[in-house]
Amino acid sequence: MRVYLDHNATTPVDARVALAMRAALEETWGNPSSVHREGRRARDLVERARAEVSALLGGQDGRVVFTSGGTEADLLGIVGAARAARARGRPARVVTSPLEHPAVAGATATLAAEGFEVVTVPTDPVGRIDPAALRGEAALVSFALANHELGNLYDVRALAEAARKLGAIVHCDAVQAAGKVAIDVEALGVDLVAISAHKLYGPKGAGALWMRRGVELDPLHPGGHQEKGLRPGTEDVAAIVGFGEAARLARGEGLEAAPGVAALRDRLEAACLAIEGARVHGDRAARVGNTTNVGFSGVRGELVVISLDLEGVAASTGAACTSGRVEPSPVIVALGQAPADAAEAVRFSLGRGTRSEDIERVAAILPAIVARVRAAGEA
Amino acid sequence: MRVYLDHNATTPVDARVALAMRAALEETWGNPSSVHREGRRARDLVERARAEVSALLGGQDGRVVFTSGGTEADLLGIVGAARAARARGRPARVVTSPLEHPAVAGATATLAAEGFEVVTVPTDPVGRIDPAALRGEAALVSFALANHELGNLYDVRALAEAARKLGAIVHCDAVQAAGKVAIDVEALGVDLVAISAHKLYGPKGAGALWMRRGVELDPLHPGGHQEKGLRPGTEDVAAIVGFGEAARLARGEGLEAAPGVAALRDRLEAACLAIEGARVHGDRAARVGNTTNVGFSGVRGELVVISLDLEGVAASTGAACTSGRVEPSPVIVALGQAPADAAEAVRFSLGRGTRSEDIERVAAILPAIVARVRAAGEA
Repeated sequence: MRVYLDHNATTPVDARVALAMRAALEETWGNPSSVHREGRRARDLVERARAEVSALLGGQDGRVVFTSGGTEADLLGIVGAARAARARGRPARVVTSPLEHPAVAGATATLAAEGFEVVTVPTDPVGRIDPAALRGEAALVSFALANHELGNLYDVRALAEAARKLGAIVHCDAVQAAGKVAIDVEALGVDLVAISAHKLYGPKGAGALWMRRGVELDPLHPGGHQEKGLRPGTEDVAAIVGFGEAARLARGEGLEAAPGVAALRDRLEAACLAIEGARVHGDRAARVGNTTNVGFSGVRGELVVISLDLEGVAASTGAACTSGRVEPSPVIVALGQAPADAAEAVRFSLGRGTRSEDIERVAAILPAIVARVRAAGEA
Repeated sequence: MRVYLDHNATTPVDARVALAMRAALEETWGNPSSVHREGRRARDLVERARAEVSALLGGQDGRVVFTSGGTEADLLGIVGAARAARARGRPARVVTSPLEHPAVAGATATLAAEGFEVVTVPTDPVGRIDPAALRGEAALVSFALANHELGNLYDVRALAEAARKLGAIVHCDAVQAAGKVAIDVEALGVDLVAISAHKLYGPKGAGALWMRRGVELDPLHPGGHQEKGLRPGTEDVAAIVGFGEAARLARGEGLEAAPGVAALRDRLEAACLAIEGARVHGDRAARVGNTTNVGFSGVRGELVVISLDLEGVAASTGAACTSGRVEPSPVIVALGQAPADAAEAVRFSLGRGTRSEDIERVAAILPAIVARVRAAGEA
């Protein structure tokens, strides 16, 4: 029996989501742009899912654009809004943090290649960002609601307020927050929010960008008229249906499960800290409930992850989107750690299905694994 | 019982494809970038599907990049290769036709906005393109293998040969050809081929770009490392698995079914032509077997499509990707027809499951529908 503690990389597909997708695949396979009945039925499913996703974000006055995933949602929000803002005469300047997911970093790199100045505000050693660090006029600011590696939760409301004073549109990557904490776009005061289905027990292949009414966005590319011209290409109806169902379930069940998950995470973290030379990365005072990022001095995280895998436990060294890279986590490096220290990071991310016995099993095997890897490194 | 004659918009998902996807969704939901077992199992499925899709195209020496669909595959191929070619010093000039799908037109429009000269070669009244029309140095040329509205099949081998003399990379949008005619990228002599799963009984949400070895491509945007850095974002494993299965089935069954489909299409076309004032759009001498595009003089195609829908038959006026637009089909206009005439177009596209009785039913009801719409227009 495997123990899966890598829910920040991806989550299992909820059985009810799979069932909804199966019905869509087998029965409602029409093209939602077609005017005939087969098309209209598919369109109806897409619009129902849109309402569910919008409801998850508390977006009463705005709209949701479906994309192929969180990466494209971040890209569309950041690049699309910054280009449109520049076209309106706003300064070609965007502000972000050094802790963002590669999707956001990729989007700001795209803007940098187009002549935008990309300003990265500093962070403290646990990854906190001071809203007072936001200075100077900007077209757009972008901050995650929850960090993908540390789990840090940001005071996006305060960051958004500071950003507004710079005249900036506020984009928020909420991919790692959705389903873990309640999100209310009105309370947060943000303009654009990106989320992904497969991080909340939905399928891969579906992301969404919520847009506040009145926010202008250029499509990334011209093409078909889909999604009101903002995202050309036939909608992935089945994945969108799965996203809608996952959003509905997250509203009902995701948040309630969170306290129990946090207790299990705390138990696992305590077990990690009981190992000699262990430390926790990130802001323990403000985190999502499912994530802990630990380092064991002198122990390469990758070897811990591989050893855990051999003993039936799935964890990771950081973002799956950067796995395969030789470099240590850029997030941990941004906290001020030396690359060798940053390479010690191990991320455990729990989920709805994580049980107490799973955590006890990891707690039982981890000390020996760390000792073994450490001894091999010292030999 | 509905009669679905809009397979160029989208196809039903084959039951075996849905079954393969179900297994992937329920059991192999890992992130293919994760290094642990859950990730490796998902990676294995993605790579198996890649081999199937490559085999469908006969691509022995090249590779396949998965995208979110045909639109993104066209975009990545055209924009990615043209940008890379310009960076190598090739002239900022691309050559295409006026008959291309909005995905291709969108990609060349993106290039035009970046300073590329976009040359559109002429077509004759049935939509043929003379390879001799390709003149002048170019970074890239792009032609469809089969037109989405007319069904016209192009002599891409001759077009590719002419393009090579211009020093151009050759991109081919084969979205409407795959599964209908055999595709052999070696025989065609093309460099880039885009296809889409949902046009060949696979799911929406998966496309592929085949790249000849040595062809250089810039990713559309930086981001995660997925698909060898060419397409950031978590792979949609379930849709890719469905694509692989659909490609496998298309190799075994798609082409064999084609002659029977063509006979049914010819029967339907004859029934259309028996109606007063009917004409066929496109190249009847070189077409895919499943498509006919007809016009009835004085009869708006949209009203025919709506009337057919009410009587249980799904057809279309043209590309679903342009539906909802007020303008008549740009493809038919490009053939030299007046906009009012182009607005008369009705496209019937048959599929594997089309039966003789389906065609007879349409043949039986169509004359009265055309007469009714015509009479209403004259009243």
